[in-house]
Amino acid sequence: MRVRMVVAYDGTAYHGWQLQNNANTIEAELNKHLTKLLGEEIRVIGASRTDAGVHALGNIAVFDTNTRIPAEKISYALNRALPDDIRIMDSRQVADDYHPRHRKTRKIYEYRICRGEFPIPTERLYSHFTYRPLDVEKMREAARILIGEHDFKSFCSIDTQAETTVRTIYDIVLLEDGPLLKIRVCGNGFLYNMVRIIVGTLFEVGIGHYEPAHVDEILAALDRQKAGPTMPAAGLMLYSYEEEEPF
Amino acid sequence: MRVRMVVAYDGTAYHGWQLQNNANTIEAELNKHLTKLLGEEIRVIGASRTDAGVHALGNIAVFDTNTRIPAEKISYALNRALPDDIRIMDSRQVADDYHPRHRKTRKIYEYRICRGEFPIPTERLYSHFTYRPLDVEKMREAARILIGEHDFKSFCSIDTQAETTVRTIYDIVLLEDGPLLKIRVCGNGFLYNMVRIIVGTLFEVGIGHYEPAHVDEILAALDRQKAGPTMPAAGLMLYSYEEEEPF
Repeated sequence: MRVRMVVAYDGTAYHGWQLQNNANTIEAELNKHLTKLLGEEIRVIGASRTDAGVHALGNIAVFDTNTRIPAEKISYALNRALPDDIRIMDSRQVADDYHPRHRKTRKIYEYRICRGEFPIPTERLYSHFTYRPLDVEKMREAARILIGEHDFKSFCSIDTQAETTVRTIYDIVLLEDGPLLKIRVCGNGFLYNMVRIIVGTLFEVGIGHYEPAHVDEILAALDRQKAGPTMPAAGLMLYSYEEEEPF
Repeated sequence: MRVRMVVAYDGTAYHGWQLQNNANTIEAELNKHLTKLLGEEIRVIGASRTDAGVHALGNIAVFDTNTRIPAEKISYALNRALPDDIRIMDSRQVADDYHPRHRKTRKIYEYRICRGEFPIPTERLYSHFTYRPLDVEKMREAARILIGEHDFKSFCSIDTQAETTVRTIYDIVLLEDGPLLKIRVCGNGFLYNMVRIIVGTLFEVGIGHYEPAHVDEILAALDRQKAGPTMPAAGLMLYSYEEEEPF
């Protein structure tokens, strides 16, 4: 059977999702513990290959197995073996042709910025600190320009392997929660480093380097050099992964 | 001059506030780095000697120094030397007879409970996980009984050295923030483990072991055995420390 798992993790101690030689990754941990639990060689396929230091509340991993353990019980058994910075939030059987990267989806990423004179220690692992005041209303204005279907070539690291750089952003919401500014970006898919470059661009607007309307020119330029910096990984979390069709 | 600092820390890696032989503590880190920075032997006095694993956003540390560095600049200089799980949020000069434990104060502690089928990895260091559903309305009803001036002997670890177990609780607020339940307890002072025992008692109400009205009997019993368990340290944070008089 094919099993779909919702995977949450604290990315602090990992070199990202994807298997690497001599480096601890989420994929490697899942393969190792599933292989041991189920007594057969297991190789998961992930929906999003998050970078080193990026966190997740709802990444998706899929694998095939001959086990007789019911799919819904795998989460419980696996969580007893996994380190406490990785948890399986859900496991269930799906159709044999289900593939997490060939589905219509709405992914939400959350980026957290912690504002203040000094960083808050208990927020340091899950946010990016800035002492600079941010004009959140101008950031919202800039964010609205990015909503919709656009060619996001300016918001994509140049080493992308994507066939097309056109993507749809459904919404960008900026929530203020005390010192934290949470930026939630919802879209049908994201290019390499796209969320971190979008947030870097909104950050430049927030500190007054760009006017909001300048984001129009950045989009039109189709040039990574025109956009803001790629924000650090620790502030980023793959928040949720919704599929438009049942599975 | 006497200097008052607001100290924030992630308590995960520390054996609490207070100096101990052969153990890493917040007080030891502050003494070590202040002594090195100011070139004289410094010993801080803390407002709250938080336990191992407890966090703080606003603990207070006070010390005397002959330095010519302006008191307001000490936070900046010290933060460059401290490990990133401790930060000085503010430093200023106070009167020579200022003592952080002889002041009229309003302290707020926050206890976080993370609810769900499985724990969220990125919340694990700063909350206590439970898979049990909690009746938050009943917990609020029970909390209201504790507000006011009472003898909190039932809510105090038996190895206390306090002269009196009478304290005033100004307010207890339960905030739901997605899977997190944040319980903020504001009072003029707290006995040893008092907040963790209050939360343990509210937890017993939340899971239906006690009716809210039973908290009246627990208060009247003046007996630690009658109250709920002491909740684990990681969920607790010393949130803020307000003084009623200027300094």
